[in-house]
Formats: sequence, C-alpha cells, structure tokens
Amino acid sequence: MHRFPLVILLLIICAVKCRMAKAEQSPGSGNVYTLASVREDLIRQEDTIIYGLIERAKFPSNSHTYDAKYAQIPGFCGSLVEFVVKNTEDIQAKAGRYKNPEENPFFPENLPPSSVPSYPFPQFLHPGAASININKSIWKMYLHELLPLLATSGDDGNYAQTAASDLSLLQAVSKRIHYGKFVAEVKFRDAPEDYEPLIRAKDREGLMKLLTFTSVEEAVRMRVEKKATVFGQEVSLDSNEDNEKRKFDPSVASRLYKNWVIPLTKEVQVEYLLRRLG
Amino acid sequence: MHRFPLVILLLIICAVKCRMAKAEQSPGSGNVYTLASVREDLIRQEDTIIYGLIERAKFPSNSHTYDAKYAQIPGFCGSLVEFVVKNTEDIQAKAGRYKNPEENPFFPENLPPSSVPSYPFPQFLHPGAASININKSIWKMYLHELLPLLATSGDDGNYAQTAASDLSLLQAVSKRIHYGKFVAEVKFRDAPEDYEPLIRAKDREGLMKLLTFTSVEEAVRMRVEKKATVFGQEVSLDSNEDNEKRKFDPSVASRLYKNWVIPLTKEVQVEYLLRRLG
Repeated sequence: MHRFPLVILLLIICAVKCRMAKAEQSPGSGNVYTLASVREDLIRQEDTIIYGLIERAKFPSNSHTYDAKYAQIPGFCGSLVEFVVKNTEDIQAKAGRYKNPEENPFFPENLPPSSVPSYPFPQFLHPGAASININKSIWKMYLHELLPLLATSGDDGNYAQTAASDLSLLQAVSKRIHYGKFVAEVKFRDAPEDYEPLIRAKDREGLMKLLTFTSVEEAVRMRVEKKATVFGQEVSLDSNEDNEKRKFDPSVASRLYKNWVIPLTKEVQVEYLLRRLG
Repeated sequence: MHRFPLVILLLIICAVKCRMAKAEQSPGSGNVYTLASVREDLIRQEDTIIYGLIERAKFPSNSHTYDAKYAQIPGFCGSLVEFVVKNTEDIQAKAGRYKNPEENPFFPENLPPSSVPSYPFPQFLHPGAASININKSIWKMYLHELLPLLATSGDDGNYAQTAASDLSLLQAVSKRIHYGKFVAEVKFRDAPEDYEPLIRAKDREGLMKLLTFTSVEEAVRMRVEKKATVFGQEVSLDSNEDNEKRKFDPSVASRLYKNWVIPLTKEVQVEYLLRRLG
C-alpha cells in the first residue's frame, strides 16, 4: 500500500526534472518572455530583415516570378513565388517549424503536420493567439508596395533564387509583425488594469492609443535606417572607400518599418488583446 | 520561289533580335564574364556568405537537426537537414534554379527537371564544367568543421529554421567555390599560352602554382574579416555604443575563406582547366 504512492511521487519528480532539463536546453527560444527579452528579440529581428532586404535587392524585379501566367508547373496553379513559398512551407512544416508559436505560415491551408518529435516550446500566449494570422495582408504589401521600392527593373532569369530570397524576407517580416502577440502579452501582464476595461469595451481605438509611443516608434525607424546604412555599405580594405556606394537605399528599410511593420504589429497587438480575456 | 528564303531570313533576324533583347534584359547574371565582372561578383558573394554566417550563428548548434536517428519522417531516410536541403532543392529545381550554370545542387541524384520556360543564360563555360560538383566535400566541411566554430552549443528546438539557414549558407558557399569555373575560364581566355602546356601535361601542381597569388588571397581574407566585423556589429542609436558586442566571431569568416573557400575554389579551377581542351 505504501509503495504505490512512492512510485508515483518518483515518476512525478522524474517528469518535472526531465522537463526542467529540457527547458534549460532552450536558451534561444527563451523560457520566459519579458519586456527586456522581447525588446532584445525585436532589435535582433531588425538585422535579419535588413540582411533579407539587401539580399532581395541583389536581384532585379524579375517580374516572371510573380506572373501566374508564366509558370506552367504541372499540378500547380499560381505564380512561381507562390509555388516556391507554398512548397517550401510544406517541407518546413514537416520539419516542425510551425510548432513554435513565433512562426505563422503564408499558406496555412492544407499545411502538413510536423513529422518530428515535439519540442516543449514555452506556452506563453493566450490560446486565442493561434487564430491571428495576417500574412495575407503582408503578402499583398510585400508584392505591391515593398518590392517596387526595393528591386530595380530588369530580368536576370534567376526566378527560383528570387523567390527563395522573397521567402526568407517574407518570413522575417511576418515573424516580426506577429511578434506583436508576445509584445501585447508582456504589456498586458505588466499592467492588466490598464487593458481590461478597454478590452471589455472592445475599444480598438483606445487600445491602439495605449499601445502607441510616437517617440519610441521614431527611434526604431531611425535605428533601422542606421543599420541599413551600416550593413548595406560596400566594405573594402581601402581606407578611402567610397561610402556612397550602397547595395540598396537605406530609406526603404525605414519606410518598411514606418508604413507597414510598426502599424501591422500594432494591429496584431490589438487583435491579440481583444481575444485575451476570452 | 523568292519569297520563301525571305521569310526564313526575316525569321532569323527576328530570332536574333529577340535573343539580343532578352540578353540585354539580364544585367545581373552578366552577359559577358570578364576579369573585372568576375572579381566584382566574387566580392558581392562575400557579403551574402557573411549575412548567412550571422544568420546561422543566431541559432545554437541544435544537434538534433543533424542526427539521422532523430528525424523519423515517413518515406525519408536521413537527418532533418538532409530532408530540408534535398526537398527544397527539388522545389527550386522545378522553378529552374539549376538551369543557371552558376548553381550546383547538393543532391543532384534524381533532381526533378525545370518546369519553367528556359531562359537564355550565357553559355560561357566549356561543357566539361557540368561534370564538376564538389558539394559532397563542401557538405562535410560545413557540418564537421565550420558549424562547430560557428554555433554555440545548445538546443532551442528551431530545427527547421536552423536547417533552412544551413541551406542558404551552404548554397552561398557552394556558389562561391564553384564560381572557380568562371574564374578559370576568364583566366584561360586571358592567357591560353600559359595554361595549355600544363593542361596537356596534366600538371596539377603547375596549374595550382599558376593560379596562386598569396598576396591576393591574404587581401581577400582580410577584407572578409573586415566585412564580418562591420556587418556583425550591434548597431544602436547611442553614439557610445559597445563595439565589443558582436553577433559572431569575425575570425570564423576569415578562417572559412582561408581554410576552405580559397583552397576549394582553386581545386575547382584546376578540375575545370584539366577539362578545358577536351
């Protein structure tokens, strides 16, 4: 009679220890999201976005990549960029990408399940977060607003490489914008009394006002432009190097942030908060 | 009787004009490879490799990504990184990536054909170039030599994202090394009289000596380290920023060039030259 509860107790201790050991192994994904860790992550994501902008700007516009009439791929109806993004997402889904709540697919319809053992990603968000995916808006913005600013006109035939660099940049921008879910959660936990009345009143405008810090947004925009200038410069051993030679126009990076990344992140935050008490 | 040849003549003129127009549209891929254009391209490829190194260094080692026993993906035998690279290459092959002679797949076996209309990439290389693919060596170097230098130990569960960043970096390094085919061709065209006797004698050592410029190699290594320092720094709006904070160790970039990229590029050049008169 006495041994049975002891076995259960040992099993519980073992399970907890095992979970702790696994959690300790995951420094990058962050066990705990805090205001400081979220801020640090957002700053690091700026670099990834800027490298992505520079790498996409390496190719000309390559309009065939986006023309549904050009690609006649058997069994697929759509443009080359849709073909590459949809199919690469399927592969990455099987490899477990979308088990991490920080990731959101562009083609969530018929996405195959993960085929790898599950990893204990921290479950930090309210379950309502899973229903927020604004990638359709990001896709449209990317193709119709950002690309015309970023890519010079021309055609070098490297459509697959262009689509692959589109995918990397789209994923980086999407991750940054949907990170609004984590931003909103840390802000909510920090001062629930400020948010709860507005959430109950479904006051989108009030929430948007509470989430807006114009001076912070301006600082982000300026930092992004500075990073784009530093990372986009031509570096040579010659100390008299021509600093005017650039791989892309740094103002495109700050415009991306000002016009789309910052407003869309706030849109995600509002959507998240409206689900927060559900 | 007279009209038939005229129609043929007009068709020929039209075909030539059409080809010229297409060729004029392709500034990025380069209509003509010259010593200057090849050098410029090699310098730009350094930036892509450094962004790739920084992006891979964002993740810890994530050893499950490389463990054939971890991934139990139905219908696939191998590690997660093999799964992601092989399947993404298949998608990009269908989208036409490997029609460009600058690209070489890691898994050329059973690669699906391109499903897109063919593009007139300049046929600059001797046909023997197609049989040179040293990606098996690059793959081994990457996994066993470079990754241990680049990634800190740890596991954050982002195996799919890790494999995707491995693929981008592997493709950039592979493109740079196989660009040796173009380097060798421009050098050969510049001074065939220097190369022909050594090629006929199958004198690998002599060819290697002719291709080696120690001071140029040292300058490349130094420029790459400088770029890695500039692109890998943490940029903030604060003018008193801590320049010691870095996203990765810049000496890893110069070691990559010194130990592997430069020697393997020369290996590709020698292999190419040995086929050049065939």
